[in-house]
Amino acid sequence: MSTNQSPSGRPETLSGNRDEQLRQAMSRTGLDALWVSRPENVRYLSGFTSGDDAKLLVVAAGDQTGATLYTDARYTVQAGEESRFPAFIARSPATLEHAASSVQGLRVGFEADHLTVSELETLRAHWQAGGTPATLVSTQGVVEGLRLVKTEEEVAQIRAAQTIADAAFAAVRPGIMAGVREDSVAGQLEAFMRERGAGSAFDITVASGPRGAMPHGTASARVIGNDELVTIDFGAKVNGYHSDMTRTVAVGNPSEELRRLYRAVLEAEEAAVQAIRPGAKCSDLDKLARDILVSHGLGEYFAHSLGHGVGLAIHEGPGLRGTSKDVLEAGMVVTAEPGVYLPGVGGVRIEDLILVTPTGHEVLSSSPKEHL
Amino acid sequence: MSTNQSPSGRPETLSGNRDEQLRQAMSRTGLDALWVSRPENVRYLSGFTSGDDAKLLVVAAGDQTGATLYTDARYTVQAGEESRFPAFIARSPATLEHAASSVQGLRVGFEADHLTVSELETLRAHWQAGGTPATLVSTQGVVEGLRLVKTEEEVAQIRAAQTIADAAFAAVRPGIMAGVREDSVAGQLEAFMRERGAGSAFDITVASGPRGAMPHGTASARVIGNDELVTIDFGAKVNGYHSDMTRTVAVGNPSEELRRLYRAVLEAEEAAVQAIRPGAKCSDLDKLARDILVSHGLGEYFAHSLGHGVGLAIHEGPGLRGTSKDVLEAGMVVTAEPGVYLPGVGGVRIEDLILVTPTGHEVLSSSPKEHL
Repeated sequence: MSTNQSPSGRPETLSGNRDEQLRQAMSRTGLDALWVSRPENVRYLSGFTSGDDAKLLVVAAGDQTGATLYTDARYTVQAGEESRFPAFIARSPATLEHAASSVQGLRVGFEADHLTVSELETLRAHWQAGGTPATLVSTQGVVEGLRLVKTEEEVAQIRAAQTIADAAFAAVRPGIMAGVREDSVAGQLEAFMRERGAGSAFDITVASGPRGAMPHGTASARVIGNDELVTIDFGAKVNGYHSDMTRTVAVGNPSEELRRLYRAVLEAEEAAVQAIRPGAKCSDLDKLARDILVSHGLGEYFAHSLGHGVGLAIHEGPGLRGTSKDVLEAGMVVTAEPGVYLPGVGGVRIEDLILVTPTGHEVLSSSPKEHL
Repeated sequence: MSTNQSPSGRPETLSGNRDEQLRQAMSRTGLDALWVSRPENVRYLSGFTSGDDAKLLVVAAGDQTGATLYTDARYTVQAGEESRFPAFIARSPATLEHAASSVQGLRVGFEADHLTVSELETLRAHWQAGGTPATLVSTQGVVEGLRLVKTEEEVAQIRAAQTIADAAFAAVRPGIMAGVREDSVAGQLEAFMRERGAGSAFDITVASGPRGAMPHGTASARVIGNDELVTIDFGAKVNGYHSDMTRTVAVGNPSEELRRLYRAVLEAEEAAVQAIRPGAKCSDLDKLARDILVSHGLGEYFAHSLGHGVGLAIHEGPGLRGTSKDVLEAGMVVTAEPGVYLPGVGGVRIEDLILVTPTGHEVLSSSPKEHL
């Protein structure tokens, strides 16, 4: 039923910089404990790589401090090898019964943007039934806030992933030509990244010709035609950390209309990248790129936000969009990826992966861009 | 902001067999409407393949019947091509403001096993603020219940996926030998499936030697050694439908202890498969396999349930586990996958994909099993 747990059922002591940041974030939110359910957050705090099948209870109340990883018997060996915290091996509801003894009388946060309505009901049933019930507190972004600014070690993982992705693009680019299937291009990228020990960060977009009008046009069996643009959006994953890059390439001689779209997107993208620095408002960056596309009469075809943070999740904070309140800080890793999509005609997206540095930025993605 | 929506904002008429089943399921649950958030359910009902970025509102109350797909402008073209229902193109909260007019005064179900606590709060804020508020009703398994029994068309997709997976295994099996990295085996399987037009159904498990003790040992950089067992768990994905199969193979001459484990698991697996037929209780099937492993003194090492349904999700109902109330029906597609995992020693899992037929079952996975 269980391994590695401390005899009392109490989680073990929190220590280290990340733990201290978490303790402060919990204190600011008035929490004695936090039930971490989002897989990336479980992984971030514990080191356990199968966060999809685990939860983490963090307690930081008075002299009770520490954390317990909850996962099931499929992961007994893996939890022992990977987790910084003791693991209690069980399935729900035994998990929650065990945790109940640790949360009595405490203010316990849950992750409202991840926990399902059913899961909250189950927490209530187990933790609020006894004589010293826990108080359940809805929280948003407690751990996500810590993940915004990357450590050097995290940046190194993202950089390693992007380096493999750049090498994959260089290897595959010469074969992107008329007569080749989109999914063959995707398969070559996947195989190259796998050979270098990386996974694919997400379903690869290879959108050629009119399919370029689909921003998320996952590679299909379509055969790339002559004089088309092809949008390729892909990334590598190394030790859970993602890279993310898009290039739009020309096959043959695309029409002047398509070239005009390309040049407008490239102008918007380069301007946005140049403006990335600590203190920049994410909403301003989105507006900067959007205004350029508007000036080319293409504003209505830029159908998404400018970009997003990248880390243990392929999409995480900060959000580079018009409604965002986020401000860039050194150590954030973000994308800038304006695009235009014309139904029936085609589309263009260009995306770089960018590290915010103390003095400005460093573009992590190094694959060349075409000039059409 | 929007395309394809009916002028009134009312969803269009429901029709067809799947819609009628849904209407009946909603009626049994006392629902006038259902807010569908789980991606596979959105896809199942609407045909829209990017369910991760979409919701579906189904209304079946009196003369108001129909459904509206909600997704954002990245998918304008795709929604027009794929969705059986009209699409309203917007982002939240414009989505919910639009839907509010359709749900006034209705009993609207939400999917409590998928909707997050935050998302429920947002629904409440938009649908219960006005003069004729909706009543929000927690539901579980309404659409999942329809998905349990597959149509012929769905079985054909799953069969196509498994056929590609079997061909991939046949192509890759000869190269599984000492000196080869686990992730190279995984990469070859992925490349083969991709070349046949299929995606990989999930992160491929290739667990060799002592890593075999990790039931979910995703392929690592470990080099396969001599006289080891290697567990390979993988599947293909075709048009959203998954296959799922595990084989454990011998490299060189594994020890008698490992062979004994293998024979016990094979005995349990074959017995479970033979017992699959309409009317069989899922809990009995789990017990049948478990009892065989217990008789070999291995019960404590069978650390998971016997199996699960497979379809648009890699793991769906029915659940072949001890606590399940499910009973098999013709048209269900399930796995039987007993395994044993000995920390420090290794492990074995054998899994077939099985269609429940009117008279018994058909094993969809045809890759040969070794006899050790």
